[in-house]
Amino acid sequence: MTRPRAGGMVRRMSLLRHVERCTRADLREFLPFRLEGQTVGWLRPAVVERLSGIEHVRRAADGVTVDPDLSGPAELDPVLDQIVARLDGLTERKPTGERIPVLARWGEAPLATMERAGAVPLGITACGVHVNGYVRRGAETLLWVGHRAADREVAPGKLDHLIAGGLPAGLSLRENLRKEAAEEAGLDAATADRAVPVGAVQYRFAKAGGLRSDLLFVYDLELPDGVSPENRDGEVDRFELWPLDRVLATVRDTDEFKFNVALVVTGFLLRHGAIDPDSEPDYAALVAGLSGVRPG
Amino acid sequence: MTRPRAGGMVRRMSLLRHVERCTRADLREFLPFRLEGQTVGWLRPAVVERLSGIEHVRRAADGVTVDPDLSGPAELDPVLDQIVARLDGLTERKPTGERIPVLARWGEAPLATMERAGAVPLGITACGVHVNGYVRRGAETLLWVGHRAADREVAPGKLDHLIAGGLPAGLSLRENLRKEAAEEAGLDAATADRAVPVGAVQYRFAKAGGLRSDLLFVYDLELPDGVSPENRDGEVDRFELWPLDRVLATVRDTDEFKFNVALVVTGFLLRHGAIDPDSEPDYAALVAGLSGVRPG
Repeated sequence: MTRPRAGGMVRRMSLLRHVERCTRADLREFLPFRLEGQTVGWLRPAVVERLSGIEHVRRAADGVTVDPDLSGPAELDPVLDQIVARLDGLTERKPTGERIPVLARWGEAPLATMERAGAVPLGITACGVHVNGYVRRGAETLLWVGHRAADREVAPGKLDHLIAGGLPAGLSLRENLRKEAAEEAGLDAATADRAVPVGAVQYRFAKAGGLRSDLLFVYDLELPDGVSPENRDGEVDRFELWPLDRVLATVRDTDEFKFNVALVVTGFLLRHGAIDPDSEPDYAALVAGLSGVRPG
Repeated sequence: MTRPRAGGMVRRMSLLRHVERCTRADLREFLPFRLEGQTVGWLRPAVVERLSGIEHVRRAADGVTVDPDLSGPAELDPVLDQIVARLDGLTERKPTGERIPVLARWGEAPLATMERAGAVPLGITACGVHVNGYVRRGAETLLWVGHRAADREVAPGKLDHLIAGGLPAGLSLRENLRKEAAEEAGLDAATADRAVPVGAVQYRFAKAGGLRSDLLFVYDLELPDGVSPENRDGEVDRFELWPLDRVLATVRDTDEFKFNVALVVTGFLLRHGAIDPDSEPDYAALVAGLSGVRPG
């Protein structure tokens, strides 16, 4: 698919399609879900029906509210546990046994915590840490690309970057980064601490099972040439060091990267000069789209 | 002003206020302005009134349209010239003699060109190039900060970065960058060409005179330690090399930086790890806000 643009710009398979896929959410299909009077999630009507009769959960004209007299994890977590127990068959993930923070906004104390598998059916934003591992070889930059194991529940066989992990309740981003660096790439804490925070990627899209809403904190980690990451938790079969033109072509022309890794990698390519605004007609839309702005 | 946050986070004078200032636009106060049937600008009712009687300019119920039979700069530029001639007293800038491209979207061929001073009254997006000049000294990163001359029409005495310039019609971003690098920093084309595209900053805010809408393409340029930029066009009195903690404190706690330079510099700080998401409660809002997302 090519289409002539200004000044010889040509649209190939587009980087922007990854962003477009991740910004499809019509919130009119959802009702807000509130804790302490603040919207923390979005519910499909089918989910709202399932919640009737749970103590402290009230259906209002404009959404579902947990009794605003309840506040903080000690009082709200038991209510969320009852809510999540009603979601049987709606969650596409099995219960993970891991609790995530429920936030009205990044930087505020969590209002509550809940089982991770409830995030999509309840439209609750899940935070994560994504780390691009890269090597400088002269003027060239190379990116570590992981091949996800074929037996994974999530995105089997897809391409990944160095380290990624959802943020569990009770850990800082840096603590989580250290934990995942050890499990996913066999890197020690001192190496993990050299990862530099470089931004965030946000997206939200409607699914049959609910609303996927993610806030990914992105880090770049320069590794010495010759040091290879080693996966320890079975998530990744092998890592390869790719030149950026191969990364760019693969993100642009294929769906081999896990969907959200494609976004984080696009951000890496933008930040490291691998995409030129003079020749990429979608440049401004890509930058905005990675922050959750719907292109168009 | 301090306010306790989660995990010891404290809100000082906020980086986010610069973003908040630049995202105040209620488009309901404006009517769309169309060329070739595409919205390229936004007009206050007072501007709409001034345009009555211009040939090929039609007031429709939902905006102002230039006759859609007219297309391309050859046919549209004379109409825009007549429109701009009606803006006397509304433009806060004197006519610059420089024409800018009128775009429906970055990456498309310009629909027309027009005198730069008409951009705000017509709510047309102006593109620009902003370059952060920096130096690496061991593990430390330092940023070149310019002191704008006191006799400037725009932002006299404010702090600036290394190079910035609006994009005139007919130049690529890279060509404009080379031109501005020579004029504003005394850098040759080979040095300018080492500037790396790293993203874009977008904002839009309502003013008495219209709508300011900018799309700034951002480049980072590493300079050798010991090489000092030299301003040639009188825009900057002197350049100083600042450690990032001084840059951060100055952006956060003062309005000394030119308003849009504060945004570009915030992007630099975010990209270079000078802002930690674990301790900055506005982190996600800052990242999104630099792409034009209204914080909320």
